Amino acid sequence: MADAYVHGYHRRENERLQDQAGALVELLHSDTAYPSGSTVLEVGCGVGAQTVTLAQRSPAARFTSIDISASSLAEAKQRIDAAGITNVELRQADIFSLPFDAGSFDHVFVCFVLEHLSRPLEALSILKGMLRPGGTITVIEGDHGSAYFHPQSPAADAAIQTLVELQRRTGGDALIGRQLYPLLVEAGFDAVQVSPRMVYVDSSRPDLVDGFTRKTFTAMVEGVRDSTISAGLISAEMFDAGIRDLHRTAEGDGVFCYTFFKGVATRS
Amino acid sequence: MADAYVHGYHRRENERLQDQAGALVELLHSDTAYPSGSTVLEVGCGVGAQTVTLAQRSPAARFTSIDISASSLAEAKQRIDAAGITNVELRQADIFSLPFDAGSFDHVFVCFVLEHLSRPLEALSILKGMLRPGGTITVIEGDHGSAYFHPQSPAADAAIQTLVELQRRTGGDALIGRQLYPLLVEAGFDAVQVSPRMVYVDSSRPDLVDGFTRKTFTAMVEGVRDSTISAGLISAEMFDAGIRDLHRTAEGDGVFCYTFFKGVATRS
Repeated sequence: MADAYVHGYHRRENERLQDQAGALVELLHSDTAYPSGSTVLEVGCGVGAQTVTLAQRSPAARFTSIDISASSLAEAKQRIDAAGITNVELRQADIFSLPFDAGSFDHVFVCFVLEHLSRPLEALSILKGMLRPGGTITVIEGDHGSAYFHPQSPAADAAIQTLVELQRRTGGDALIGRQLYPLLVEAGFDAVQVSPRMVYVDSSRPDLVDGFTRKTFTAMVEGVRDSTISAGLISAEMFDAGIRDLHRTAEGDGVFCYTFFKGVATRS
Repeated sequence: MADAYVHGYHRRENERLQDQAGALVELLHSDTAYPSGSTVLEVGCGVGAQTVTLAQRSPAARFTSIDISASSLAEAKQRIDAAGITNVELRQADIFSLPFDAGSFDHVFVCFVLEHLSRPLEALSILKGMLRPGGTITVIEGDHGSAYFHPQSPAADAAIQTLVELQRRTGGDALIGRQLYPLLVEAGFDAVQVSPRMVYVDSSRPDLVDGFTRKTFTAMVEGVRDSTISAGLISAEMFDAGIRDLHRTAEGDGVFCYTFFKGVATRS
């Protein structure tokens, strides 16, 4: 897998992924549960942020969670062990050359992965091949073009746009959420159903102000500060103004909106 | 009320408002019902698109529905009579000089109105004065900055932006949906709760492809073609390309997203 991971692999990024998982678990995962005895392939488990949630919600399913990064898998192992989870097998693997037999899983789960791939359609086709007939795939992705807020800020828009551009340069697509339906259909899945999961944040929801606006979204944009400035995509002054304005949306009269998309589909 | 109505008062616009009401009734109104005997002031009822829904869902409440436009009220009367509705009194009135005693309503309902006003905060303060202590206000507004789609289109973005700009020039704010929470709080309401109502449209939902993407949103943008071109905000070529691209999002692999915001709050 040649694609770089735009967010990097640092500790602060891991904390961001944990905050994100905590605040959004209900919104993204509450309707995902796998039957007893079923086999689930989790693709791109990273540091295990979603793995713990998945495995706890389906304690009698058996998960095989793969990632390309050995260091992320080491983090994931710590997290899974700390949670006392025993139904997850971690394995280092590349989504484009999977070490599994065709049709060997009942379900596939992919969360925040396609956005980083230069060939998401090919990845979906490969994953379809991993499913038994009648098996399902669940895909969750964000869409940075869905972010808008009050007060408005051209600087914040520009800072976010540099993240989109950086991700494009590493072969990814930060606007992939809105494309899940056509991607799943084109990959040959049936019964494709996509539902948006909108995060609406105002000061009546302090957990989301902190957990999402500040520690998830703004932190994610902040995380590319050095790379986007050194790539010449934006001036330091403009970027920092954008970050300040994103923090401004977390104040009492601020509002922040972002939408994730969740698609579920079947292999006939 | 000096504010102009950016969408105009033509028949095609009335049809658009009817399509909109049909496709979105559940999403916007299913959780609005008023108790038997309660008095409800509907502000800016226009041609009665929402009035019929409101009155049918709360048949034992008594509605007073006002609008600034006599011709719209005449349309509304036809529609209400045709639906056999008897619990609505229509009255021509200006939101900024209401002919009612202070505190004379149990509830106020405002839908797609604040976006057209140059002084939305003042309007909300006036409406608060119309409520008895303990009474509620319900506000529903769109937000054109929430529109995004697949395939992406700079021309479509530009066409939509001219609608936002036209509305700004007539004193309105097409991005008001995201601001409902701070507006209601600043107007002095209590227990302010805002929830987004996102319209997600892909080809698995043909009713929304036709009723929303084509006949509501794209038709609304198309409706300002002459005024936006003659105002010099965009070339005819660019505008028409934008409209074509909006129709393109209604094809089999297209996706369209838009979000309304609904706020409910109490006068202490």
